[in-house]
Amino acid sequence: MSSKDLTLIDRIKSGDAAAVARVISKVEDCAPDSADLMKNVYQLSRDGLVIGITGAPGAGKSSLVDKLALFYRERGDRVGIVAVDPSSPFSGGAILGDRIRMQTLGLDQGVFIRSMATRGNLGGLARATVDAVAILDAAGYARIIVETVGVGQDEVEIVKAADVSVVVLVPGMGDDIQAIKAGIMEIGDIFVINKADRDGVYATEKELESLLSLASRGDGWDPPIVKTVAIESRGIEDLAAAIDRFAEAQRGSTLSGTRRRAIARWRIVELLRERLLANAVGSPESSATLDRLADEVATRRRDPYSAVDEIIQGLGQ
Amino acid sequence: MSSKDLTLIDRIKSGDAAAVARVISKVEDCAPDSADLMKNVYQLSRDGLVIGITGAPGAGKSSLVDKLALFYRERGDRVGIVAVDPSSPFSGGAILGDRIRMQTLGLDQGVFIRSMATRGNLGGLARATVDAVAILDAAGYARIIVETVGVGQDEVEIVKAADVSVVVLVPGMGDDIQAIKAGIMEIGDIFVINKADRDGVYATEKELESLLSLASRGDGWDPPIVKTVAIESRGIEDLAAAIDRFAEAQRGSTLSGTRRRAIARWRIVELLRERLLANAVGSPESSATLDRLADEVATRRRDPYSAVDEIIQGLGQ
Repeated sequence: MSSKDLTLIDRIKSGDAAAVARVISKVEDCAPDSADLMKNVYQLSRDGLVIGITGAPGAGKSSLVDKLALFYRERGDRVGIVAVDPSSPFSGGAILGDRIRMQTLGLDQGVFIRSMATRGNLGGLARATVDAVAILDAAGYARIIVETVGVGQDEVEIVKAADVSVVVLVPGMGDDIQAIKAGIMEIGDIFVINKADRDGVYATEKELESLLSLASRGDGWDPPIVKTVAIESRGIEDLAAAIDRFAEAQRGSTLSGTRRRAIARWRIVELLRERLLANAVGSPESSATLDRLADEVATRRRDPYSAVDEIIQGLGQ
Repeated sequence: MSSKDLTLIDRIKSGDAAAVARVISKVEDCAPDSADLMKNVYQLSRDGLVIGITGAPGAGKSSLVDKLALFYRERGDRVGIVAVDPSSPFSGGAILGDRIRMQTLGLDQGVFIRSMATRGNLGGLARATVDAVAILDAAGYARIIVETVGVGQDEVEIVKAADVSVVVLVPGMGDDIQAIKAGIMEIGDIFVINKADRDGVYATEKELESLLSLASRGDGWDPPIVKTVAIESRGIEDLAAAIDRFAEAQRGSTLSGTRRRAIARWRIVELLRERLLANAVGSPESSATLDRLADEVATRRRDPYSAVDEIIQGLGQ
């Protein structure tokens, strides 16, 4: 480890936002020194509370996250926000989101905002996101909010890796069986019905209650439903109180240990997956082999299974 | 390859739905003979048109897919439907969806419906989905519709792997910057505004047009916007015509070759990722190591990076 890296780690320890941004970029880019940096970051683990917030597009997650962050700031907590945006590599959607947010929160030194987007097709978004959370925790952010766009598998895992998972719904989503998926239900420790000044709140709440009554969590926690109108800052205090209540209930419970082990297992697997793939196709030579095989598969001269056999045989040599 | 496998492959070649279902289950479960079966399936590639359909939850994708399938059936085509449902492992949401669908389509011998859900945390959903598509193609289904719930990264890739990608929106989604993501825009070859009898169709159409005018595809195709009311079967014929037009435009174009190579590369990488991970932690012994390391990471006696170092060092021995 170089003295430059030690300096970066010292700066993170002291809560330096520029150093936090720099190290997050390094883990996103898989910089050569990122693994060593992260080993040091994990030594600095503090007890920041990680809050995962998910829900369908259009549910108003960003507004809710911004208002919750403002609430925590007023209470004196430093707040980190990590917005996961898997679709942005195509066009920089994350950047647009950031710029709009910067107008309300960005000038506050006690708030750190970062959007995470996919880089290339080798994956690693989920791993980079949990690393970014660990970096913010090491830098002393007391509340770290992870916001995910969409309801894909990666995003579900990212939200499950939080200490508290919040699922955001809006009135009227119950129109469609797909809208309120039992799967999404089961990851929520707390449910928010946002835009609760709209028609259909009562129906959505009843539907949600009946879905929740079917699910069994096994930890004795009965997920509360909080109604908010984020753009008018209504219900934010109730949400913060529900989050604190859940965090308190989890502290020291046996199930919380089980949950932490499942999260740790997932994190190791994600990182392992990425490292193995980088070993297999990360070099210029192996990347050329991959291009040739892709060409053969595209023109149907070969099937994907035989192509993978060839790559794996090459690794053994 | 055993004679039993040969029989299965022969049955697929003859279009036997039970054999199709059996082989899809094998590739989902990574059965020992699944790689050999798939190598044979790829030999049977025909020219089924693969149509990917995505959009936010609640957009009415299932109804749209069902109506499009009925339309193709009336034209005499056999239709395969693969519904990707990443959230269902938690609770079987996919099965619920299937049962509802079976009431309308399931009694028709010319329609094959299958939901694909995640199995465990070792991934492989995207790979299993494209394999299922290849199996349906080998069995002579002329139209294969892949429907994805949600807008996560895996789902985007699955839809991009189709011959034609359809993005489904509903009026009023433009409320939120997150709702219409430029990233989702760029994967669409065709856009559908479903529930087009609702208020706000004109505004959504204008917003969509202006977003599309910013995107540059480079292949000269101008993605059409088709308005539908799926539950009343309105606009389905227009959608089918747009799909045929795009498929025709792509035939033999150079960009279509580039697209096929990118898809092939992604498929190889997905399969490789899964195989490497199975090699690393698929045995009972390595799974026990993973459990121990997860426990150490959960209790902060170790960081995930050092845990992965230990697993990778173990592989070298």
